[in-house]
Amino acid sequence: MRKGQLTKESIIEKAAPIFNKLGYAGASMSALMQATGLQKGGIYNHFKTKEDIILQSFEYAIKKYNRAVFNAYRNEKTALAKLRAIVNFYRTYPLNPVIEGGCPIINTAIDADNTLPQLKVRVKEVINTWIRNLSDIIKSGILQGEIKSSVNAHDASVVIITTLQGGIVISRSFEDNASMEIVVNKLLDYINFNLAK
Amino acid sequence: MRKGQLTKESIIEKAAPIFNKLGYAGASMSALMQATGLQKGGIYNHFKTKEDIILQSFEYAIKKYNRAVFNAYRNEKTALAKLRAIVNFYRTYPLNPVIEGGCPIINTAIDADNTLPQLKVRVKEVINTWIRNLSDIIKSGILQGEIKSSVNAHDASVVIITTLQGGIVISRSFEDNASMEIVVNKLLDYINFNLAK
Repeated sequence: MRKGQLTKESIIEKAAPIFNKLGYAGASMSALMQATGLQKGGIYNHFKTKEDIILQSFEYAIKKYNRAVFNAYRNEKTALAKLRAIVNFYRTYPLNPVIEGGCPIINTAIDADNTLPQLKVRVKEVINTWIRNLSDIIKSGILQGEIKSSVNAHDASVVIITTLQGGIVISRSFEDNASMEIVVNKLLDYINFNLAK
Repeated sequence: MRKGQLTKESIIEKAAPIFNKLGYAGASMSALMQATGLQKGGIYNHFKTKEDIILQSFEYAIKKYNRAVFNAYRNEKTALAKLRAIVNFYRTYPLNPVIEGGCPIINTAIDADNTLPQLKVRVKEVINTWIRNLSDIIKSGILQGEIKSSVNAHDASVVIITTLQGGIVISRSFEDNASMEIVVNKLLDYINFNLAK
């Protein structure tokens, strides 16, 4: 890999948690300079604009985040086991996020809402992909006879994702995992009593 | 009321939606000047710092928000009717928030997380108050024999609040109320089948 590419990747890697912690407007160039150990010019050698750094940092954060969730359930054999593994993944997430600062999906959903239209499109795609992934797992569970055929896979996925995302924020605001524990346990009940046959 | 006090309140009223839309770091002084029609000096006649405007705008937003939710359920007679009214209040919230820009609680929870410690304390208190309010309604429902005595009022309140808050963000990112509809209907099921006797 060329040295320039290595530097660029190192900037993204260090910028992602800064944006996730301070927000896109809140993360100043000097915060990025401090985190990367580079001068302004050194950073802008690799990116056209601050928005360019933001967009690439978001992609890096989401890739890392998706990989962590995927690793949590990839070895599970059944749809129900996969759903339980995904939900359990979040049990300690609020205080131990994949990217420092919380969940890059919900942080960016709020942060980009009225300010960064290009990022807003991307976060919507990421949420949509997660809803589709969960829906596919639920649909395969219905086909395998593990999950009730009356379950609406899309609706169940929306409920699981919104509850987990809300749980991360509420739990982080209390600076503990206690609210997340409650939410995760209730979602496991939901999987066991409302989805499982 | 003195003229100075009126101007101050008008600034807060106009600043609150700007902060809720753009975030606390994202809302520049020039955005506040444009919204209020005042010069920088005219604004700082009434506030010591930008953080001072932020803190008072948050209190204004929360007061307005709390009043709107309270009005949605205050005339209901039973605990279950109150819970249903609260949940239903959010059905169209994503596209018609009390304060332009979404829910000031979750927006501020994320925005203040690593940046505004004094505001972080306040948002935690606001969430705690909401959990306590819902818990009190559920406990009175248990006492009145409407709600199962096996229900943990705190846990049920956490689940309802996290799901609603997550729902607002996910639904806003899709720019429609569809995900919120799903979430609200599932919470009504939860109230009818898990909480009600």
